[in-house]
Amino acid sequence: MARADYPEPVVELIAELKRLPGIGPRSAERVAVWLLQNPKSNAAELAEATLKAKHEVDSCDVCGFFSSHGRCPVCSDEHRDASELCVVEQATDVLPLERSGVFKGYYHCMGGKLSPLDNVTPENLRITPLIKRVEANPGVEVILALGADVEGEATANYLAEVLSTRECRVTRIAQGLPAGGGLDHADELTLMRALQGRRQIEH
Amino acid sequence: MARADYPEPVVELIAELKRLPGIGPRSAERVAVWLLQNPKSNAAELAEATLKAKHEVDSCDVCGFFSSHGRCPVCSDEHRDASELCVVEQATDVLPLERSGVFKGYYHCMGGKLSPLDNVTPENLRITPLIKRVEANPGVEVILALGADVEGEATANYLAEVLSTRECRVTRIAQGLPAGGGLDHADELTLMRALQGRRQIEH
Repeated sequence: MARADYPEPVVELIAELKRLPGIGPRSAERVAVWLLQNPKSNAAELAEATLKAKHEVDSCDVCGFFSSHGRCPVCSDEHRDASELCVVEQATDVLPLERSGVFKGYYHCMGGKLSPLDNVTPENLRITPLIKRVEANPGVEVILALGADVEGEATANYLAEVLSTRECRVTRIAQGLPAGGGLDHADELTLMRALQGRRQIEH
Repeated sequence: MARADYPEPVVELIAELKRLPGIGPRSAERVAVWLLQNPKSNAAELAEATLKAKHEVDSCDVCGFFSSHGRCPVCSDEHRDASELCVVEQATDVLPLERSGVFKGYYHCMGGKLSPLDNVTPENLRITPLIKRVEANPGVEVILALGADVEGEATANYLAEVLSTRECRVTRIAQGLPAGGGLDHADELTLMRALQGRRQIEH
């Protein structure tokens, strides 16, 4: 007597779902069964949305953000402030900045951060397109909005070095205490950065 | 200036992913971006596996477990013990029992449990097919392997009542301390059931 298992197509679906990030074997099984059994599920719509997104969505040639037809919505918006260019690591970093609503300029996604251990060297990042954009827009402020980890720091330093010979102003977003965070929860490095970045209170 | 968001196909994909059980807005976004950007992802394979499973997988006419062509692998296995029929709530309950490897008989999935608050009455469960199977196999042991919650109890009591006039033996799986669980973590009801179900140690 063989132990019964799910039919082959279900086993295959579970295997595909398990490869998704953050989905373990249990969740994969739960999602697969839900797709097959729940009357509210629409497996066909999920499959179609997946294929459609994969086919239609591309990277913007200019900034590297997601775009569905040619230029991305940011680069094709002429009402933005061309004097500010915000450099981020990944296309996904654009969204939190957009949602905050505080930045009105354009973006440049590097496509990663320098990480010699993972074989990510300057050649793997979109540095040449960045230099071209800066040269085409003299006097622009390049705001480095990279992560506050070691690789983010290294990338910021490298970019600052490369851009130092170009006609632009390079700034970097502040590091310090996160909103809502108390001193008791902050680590030493965060406190050090917060102290280093202290500013005069204007009266 | 409009705040930029993901292109429409990505928004749609995120919406579809968010409907899956256990997937919140953050995970949906993460999975969508992974499907689009990760070189190891294969969106087409996921879409295909979803459609294939949905098209090919059905319920076994006999027991209600998953089947891909007619009868399920359990019901078409003639080497099983026909003297034992294990009644479970859902098709998914068969797998843990199969994986434990201790049960050699056949199954019957009720398709739910009695729950008047959710409008699940005896008519919504696969009770008539169960009675037919019992009548076709006189003397069978019907093992009620239903959940240890209120609805599971109610369903077990109802089934025991219905089957009492048929030629069969009705048993119920034990309730008690879970494997690896200490007394200090067990709730009062579990301890009560564990005490009630105590058995003589054989010498």
